[in-house]
Amino acid sequence: MKGAVLYGPRDVRYVEREDPKIVEPTDAIIRMSATCVCGSDLWPYRGIQAITEPTPMGHEYVGIVEEVGSAVRTVKPGQFVIGSFFASDNTCPICQAGYQSRCVNAFPVGALGAQAPYLRVPLADGTLVSTPDLPPDDLIPHLLTASDVLGTGWFAAAAAAAGPGKTVAVVGDGAVGLLGVLAAKQMGAERIVLMSRHDDRQKLGVELGATDIVTERGDDGVARIKEMTDGLGAHSVIEAVGTQESMMQAIHSTRAGGHVGFVGVTHGVAIPGEELFYAEVHLMGGPAPVRRFLPELIDLIWERKIEPGKVFDLTLPLDEVAEGYRAMDERRAIKTLLTV
Amino acid sequence: MKGAVLYGPRDVRYVEREDPKIVEPTDAIIRMSATCVCGSDLWPYRGIQAITEPTPMGHEYVGIVEEVGSAVRTVKPGQFVIGSFFASDNTCPICQAGYQSRCVNAFPVGALGAQAPYLRVPLADGTLVSTPDLPPDDLIPHLLTASDVLGTGWFAAAAAAAGPGKTVAVVGDGAVGLLGVLAAKQMGAERIVLMSRHDDRQKLGVELGATDIVTERGDDGVARIKEMTDGLGAHSVIEAVGTQESMMQAIHSTRAGGHVGFVGVTHGVAIPGEELFYAEVHLMGGPAPVRRFLPELIDLIWERKIEPGKVFDLTLPLDEVAEGYRAMDERRAIKTLLTV
Repeated sequence: MKGAVLYGPRDVRYVEREDPKIVEPTDAIIRMSATCVCGSDLWPYRGIQAITEPTPMGHEYVGIVEEVGSAVRTVKPGQFVIGSFFASDNTCPICQAGYQSRCVNAFPVGALGAQAPYLRVPLADGTLVSTPDLPPDDLIPHLLTASDVLGTGWFAAAAAAAGPGKTVAVVGDGAVGLLGVLAAKQMGAERIVLMSRHDDRQKLGVELGATDIVTERGDDGVARIKEMTDGLGAHSVIEAVGTQESMMQAIHSTRAGGHVGFVGVTHGVAIPGEELFYAEVHLMGGPAPVRRFLPELIDLIWERKIEPGKVFDLTLPLDEVAEGYRAMDERRAIKTLLTV
Repeated sequence: MKGAVLYGPRDVRYVEREDPKIVEPTDAIIRMSATCVCGSDLWPYRGIQAITEPTPMGHEYVGIVEEVGSAVRTVKPGQFVIGSFFASDNTCPICQAGYQSRCVNAFPVGALGAQAPYLRVPLADGTLVSTPDLPPDDLIPHLLTASDVLGTGWFAAAAAAAGPGKTVAVVGDGAVGLLGVLAAKQMGAERIVLMSRHDDRQKLGVELGATDIVTERGDDGVARIKEMTDGLGAHSVIEAVGTQESMMQAIHSTRAGGHVGFVGVTHGVAIPGEELFYAEVHLMGGPAPVRRFLPELIDLIWERKIEPGKVFDLTLPLDEVAEGYRAMDERRAIKTLLTV
């Protein structure tokens, strides 16, 4: 088969790769229905996260089970399935506590390259969740988001303790931040403030549930959030960027006793202990344990209660994956869907 | 009256100070029954936290109400009272959420110097909690701990989500860490690991509820905690020191999805974002909102269910306060009680 492989900075190619095969008896092979490009794919694409050899890309996937290993029990060929970007056994104490992305047997699916027509998924029973039936085509983009970007926004909102009566601020207007808005709305937040300076993203944010937009950044952004909350700060803040500025903006925008959920993959961030001590906020984040939320998210999508696939504003066939990266790198697209 | 005043590094004197008076109608004046020296008093004492002028010292207090301002409603002269080291109105949204140390009207009682026979306590109604009756003398040291050191250990254990079935690790064997052990035990923790290399503190730790002692520090200490928890780390970790090493030891000793409660006043700490991201732990700390816990703590002490005053291993009359600081600075004493 062919698949997306990164050769160096801004050099993604759709090239011949080995067909995936069952390696462990707990593996499944899925035939991809759709995949996409993640904001986090841009770190290696831009050369900020170095690669040492040609690297298969992609970690978001939905598709139909083609084949399963001899030990797989709950997943069957022919089923439509969604899995997280971390494979997990879903039985260890860390999984049982809801942190499957840190499963003692966690395996990063991205290392296997999901931007391809076929994918080997390790620990299939613990990783994959099937839909009630084969989905209609129009649901596929929404279901695909559950694999990472929706699950990550959802985790951020949960870690930020979004809920009824709460004011939630969202730092970052990428696809994760936008779906953090959707998650906060689903969790019943009273007021959802999206921090964004881009018209198209503001508009989508409002469509997904934002009640307010703040265009200021950094200290000015913090000041605006304080003004909107009687000087106290938001109850819940979602951090979906991963820079020093965005992390401190999130911490400072949160009221004492409030919660920050951070999911932007941190790059070069150092949190000053004194500021965190006197901010007195709850801080929780990391790679989202998407598996925890998959059954609920699939259910919401299946019942057409949410439309997270709206974050895809560019759709390309998989063999044009390079243009998909370029469009996101140049901020011409929020998120690229790749059809197979 | 006379009181303790810091003149410079390691120069505490018991000297004449102005008698406190009612300044605001919400103030109360209390006649001190006992006060003490806090580990955090050692930062300015050692010159690590600079002072610019002679500074009255002390922020832990219990005593009898002498006089109240015209607006005080719930506290009456003659009552025995305990208050937090932060005065709070206990009515603002931050107080109502349980974070009274960050009350919108918070006032640091330490600025008024509690190591003295009399103390003005601002926001008396929101700050002071009275005992059911005048306490017998032997309860006074225990009640005094509720003003800060017990309340802080308790907050740390609560922030670390200590509870039934949990393994709790405690980084720091000072008075706060030791009372974190006591708090974790009261909260029903299954296993409580005190990290300490001092025989006397280990012994007191066991008396207060520690089930295990780990003498290693830093990475070796982390490795020991992992060994004791099937490689996962503790569910709950209390950080009660405030250095870079202790903070990272706490974060790395915690399993993914677990909780760190940090109450050591942070000095020169910077938390690497990447490490926190991939540790995926809950992090919560700051100045303890002692007022939240006071009614419960007073009750436990009054019913003689806990004996937190055991952390006092040196008792001196207030006029020998300088020796009280010296003994703690030289680690000859865990904590000094000052009788008035």
